[in-house]
Amino acid sequence: KRPQELTLAQYVDGILAGDITILSRAVTLIESSLPKHQELAQQIILKCLPHSGSSVRLGITGVPGAGKSTFIEALGLHLIEKGAKLAVLAIDPSSERSKGSILGDKTRMESLSSTPNAYIRPSPSAGSLGGVARKTRETIILCEAAGYNTIFIETVGVGQSETAVHSMVDFFLLILIAGAGDELQGIKRGIMEMADGIAVNKADGQNIQKAQLAKTQYSNALHLFPPTRSGWIPRVETCSSILSEGISNIWDMVEEYMHKTKSNDFFNQNRREQAQYWMYESINEKLKNNFYHNALIKNKIAEIEPLVNSGQISSFEAARELLELYNKQV
Amino acid sequence: KRPQELTLAQYVDGILAGDITILSRAVTLIESSLPKHQELAQQIILKCLPHSGSSVRLGITGVPGAGKSTFIEALGLHLIEKGAKLAVLAIDPSSERSKGSILGDKTRMESLSSTPNAYIRPSPSAGSLGGVARKTRETIILCEAAGYNTIFIETVGVGQSETAVHSMVDFFLLILIAGAGDELQGIKRGIMEMADGIAVNKADGQNIQKAQLAKTQYSNALHLFPPTRSGWIPRVETCSSILSEGISNIWDMVEEYMHKTKSNDFFNQNRREQAQYWMYESINEKLKNNFYHNALIKNKIAEIEPLVNSGQISSFEAARELLELYNKQV
Repeated sequence: KRPQELTLAQYVDGILAGDITILSRAVTLIESSLPKHQELAQQIILKCLPHSGSSVRLGITGVPGAGKSTFIEALGLHLIEKGAKLAVLAIDPSSERSKGSILGDKTRMESLSSTPNAYIRPSPSAGSLGGVARKTRETIILCEAAGYNTIFIETVGVGQSETAVHSMVDFFLLILIAGAGDELQGIKRGIMEMADGIAVNKADGQNIQKAQLAKTQYSNALHLFPPTRSGWIPRVETCSSILSEGISNIWDMVEEYMHKTKSNDFFNQNRREQAQYWMYESINEKLKNNFYHNALIKNKIAEIEPLVNSGQISSFEAARELLELYNKQV
Repeated sequence: KRPQELTLAQYVDGILAGDITILSRAVTLIESSLPKHQELAQQIILKCLPHSGSSVRLGITGVPGAGKSTFIEALGLHLIEKGAKLAVLAIDPSSERSKGSILGDKTRMESLSSTPNAYIRPSPSAGSLGGVARKTRETIILCEAAGYNTIFIETVGVGQSETAVHSMVDFFLLILIAGAGDELQGIKRGIMEMADGIAVNKADGQNIQKAQLAKTQYSNALHLFPPTRSGWIPRVETCSSILSEGISNIWDMVEEYMHKTKSNDFFNQNRREQAQYWMYESINEKLKNNFYHNALIKNKIAEIEPLVNSGQISSFEAARELLELYNKQV
């Protein structure tokens, strides 16, 4: 039997009271493509906005096999023990799913998902990166309004989604493992320079020494990077998620970062810039979608791209012709 | 007295014959904002395209003070001695000019500019990054048609222009100097991961040891980066541009790279992708310009941005309202 429809006030009151069922239903509205649902979702978000913003937003990325789920479980339980209310969200656009599904089911975080103070919500199951990112960012607002003071956003470290995650979190954590030198095989270039911290996971048993060595190497490497805008110097820590060792060091690092960036006002400035970023980003995506989904443009691109590839027409002349065609129509 | 106007055929024949005066005049057409000049420029480019593409395109970046001009002079003279014909171009959008002007005058490359086989063309003096990048990319085509088999594109390493340069060259070289740890002060994060090679310049006199140490450190750091798409492993070399020492090692590295990427076909694939990139990039820039330069949109943004900043309206709701306003007009 279908659940009874709720009014806007019921949604908002339920969320502000921390009702997890109502929160989940509101997130489902956010994820829905029905205009009716979308409209209601926007009204809920508007009412929740004044109650949002006061959490720590932590982005977590790493290659499949780095032990992200286990790490999230270990860090999550540690924080809940200390009194946190934790929401775990994910950005995992369907196009990237084949490369290493995350949070596909909650069974991978069994202890955490059975804890009352944890709310785990898998990635929206379909859509473009832009769409998925929007939904996740809006879900953050609802979770914060519902009293979650710690938000994890997980993503696989192989695609475009790290930039999206990086643009909606306060601290961006990269999970690596020590290995035979190919541990970064799947990580996209540029991600390491986004990281505010690196956790070398699986530092246990025979792996401890290798993990320590990796820590030293990555520390040296990070040291050679240009300074961050936040004034924070990214750090590397080792940990064992399975043994829950070193986990508190990593959270200490996040807290130190929060303290520093709140003192120098980077924290607020960054949050403002992120809000602007998403406004402009979603405008730009929509402008591009309108153009590239236009039927005439699609045909013309199919025709002109091979000429560009083979150097028979310059990139800019091709662009000019396409824009001319588009402007004639609109 | 104004020079006589040339016909399309005269331009093309002159360029293909390597006439440096006619080449310069054609580049001036590319840089002109007059529609008449633009149209003629596009016709010239179209005729030159089949004769372009066979050069080595080298991107060179580094902070002001790293000795880029001296390095370009040393490497350029080395290559010309070996029989090269060299064109030196620059991307230096006016908005970034204050941060460290480059190639502002040829006097900084005195020996090179008096060499018949070198063609030095400063950055177009005004315009958006997109506009400047387009002009530089089109100038590459003309230079190649004029027989220049080596193209340098110089940029300051502090702004947005490295991505533009990276997207139009085969090899991207980062010039650094050894220092007290703040040598990267001005370099934007992410640039190091774009580099196919690093030259630690000013390895002379009392600086040699420091430069060697820096080489080791950067080599170790690069080693920790994920593999490049080209299959090439970026390398670090030291050099002294003033003494012309180590310069040939750096060119050997470029040649090795060219050999490797031509063998594994990354070279051609990359060139095709770059041509596509610029087509899509210039379309996207134009779509955004049309939107953001719209008077009503400008006013609405001025009104709505503070609400987004202060969290009174969500980023996505703001975007929706702006797009609605725009669509009503078009």
